Amino acid sequence: MKVKLGVRNCLYPMPTVLVGALVNGKPNYVTIAHVGIMEPQAVSLGMNKEHFSNVGIKENKTFSVNIPSTRMVAETDYCGLTTGRNEDKAKLFTTFYGPLKTAPMIEECAINMECELVKTVDFPRHDVFMGRIVESYCEENVLTEGVVDVGKVQPILFVYNDRSYWKIGERIGQAWNIGKKLAK
Amino acid sequence: MKVKLGVRNCLYPMPTVLVGALVNGKPNYVTIAHVGIMEPQAVSLGMNKEHFSNVGIKENKTFSVNIPSTRMVAETDYCGLTTGRNEDKAKLFTTFYGPLKTAPMIEECAINMECELVKTVDFPRHDVFMGRIVESYCEENVLTEGVVDVGKVQPILFVYNDRSYWKIGERIGQAWNIGKKLAK
Repeated sequence: MKVKLGVRNCLYPMPTVLVGALVNGKPNYVTIAHVGIMEPQAVSLGMNKEHFSNVGIKENKTFSVNIPSTRMVAETDYCGLTTGRNEDKAKLFTTFYGPLKTAPMIEECAINMECELVKTVDFPRHDVFMGRIVESYCEENVLTEGVVDVGKVQPILFVYNDRSYWKIGERIGQAWNIGKKLAK
Repeated sequence: MKVKLGVRNCLYPMPTVLVGALVNGKPNYVTIAHVGIMEPQAVSLGMNKEHFSNVGIKENKTFSVNIPSTRMVAETDYCGLTTGRNEDKAKLFTTFYGPLKTAPMIEECAINMECELVKTVDFPRHDVFMGRIVESYCEENVLTEGVVDVGKVQPILFVYNDRSYWKIGERIGQAWNIGKKLAK
């Protein structure tokens, strides 16, 4: 039986990322799971306007998206509990930079995407930053035959419903293929 | 060792959804995994402009987001292989409507979100539709103590890297909590 939940976002799980930004000349990292994909090479971040990082993203027009693994769940959660206003969160990680120079990235994350801000959409309490990926980096050991293998990345999946983190499970099939059997 | 991947979107897995739209007065469903969360009550769909559903979303300014379970993976994939221009995909499902009247929803999906279009962002080959949730529905049997339990929903996770679908795995901890141990 269907029940009504009211206005309740149930679009979960989402991948938990550490967003990197340069704020007042220093790298800062904040945990965000309200992310999105706009088109294949553009990603979005739905970031509460109170975040310290928003200032740096607006100033530099760059940011990074770093994907931590489940091994880093405590550090990842911690970066969502504290603000860069009071604490140097970058000291938890090794920072590196790519050609954009102002998008700090986390060496310890298996995946890093260096992004250029292309659009900002203003929501009442959130800045939605949309970035075009200019370069992606990964740890060689998460590749399988040259392709990023999420089973090796072991991303942290976020569910707001009960404020929890989850692992990815098993691979169940091939997209644009498994439904072919339904064609007449 | 880090390797460069070029411009490669690695923001996966993302939840696979069936987007419902009324096109020329008939319900249509299309599979989309390039979704996003803008703010807690607003979701986005990154939809290639060639999709038949885009016409209906623009006309009615409504759409639905339906979350299929892994049991429905063949039907879900099928809705991404075929176009509503040539085929009545709604016949695969039981359709219901809520107060918006023009956002068809799928009875067989454990979760449905009825949305009102609030913004459209124009990307070169994609319409990014942003919707405000006006009502959410769920199957009673996916609730645990009144909260949507993704372990019971069993969403289909999509990974573009190797064009695959995945299950959700185990719950690993509590958000805004598991990192507290790192506080000094």
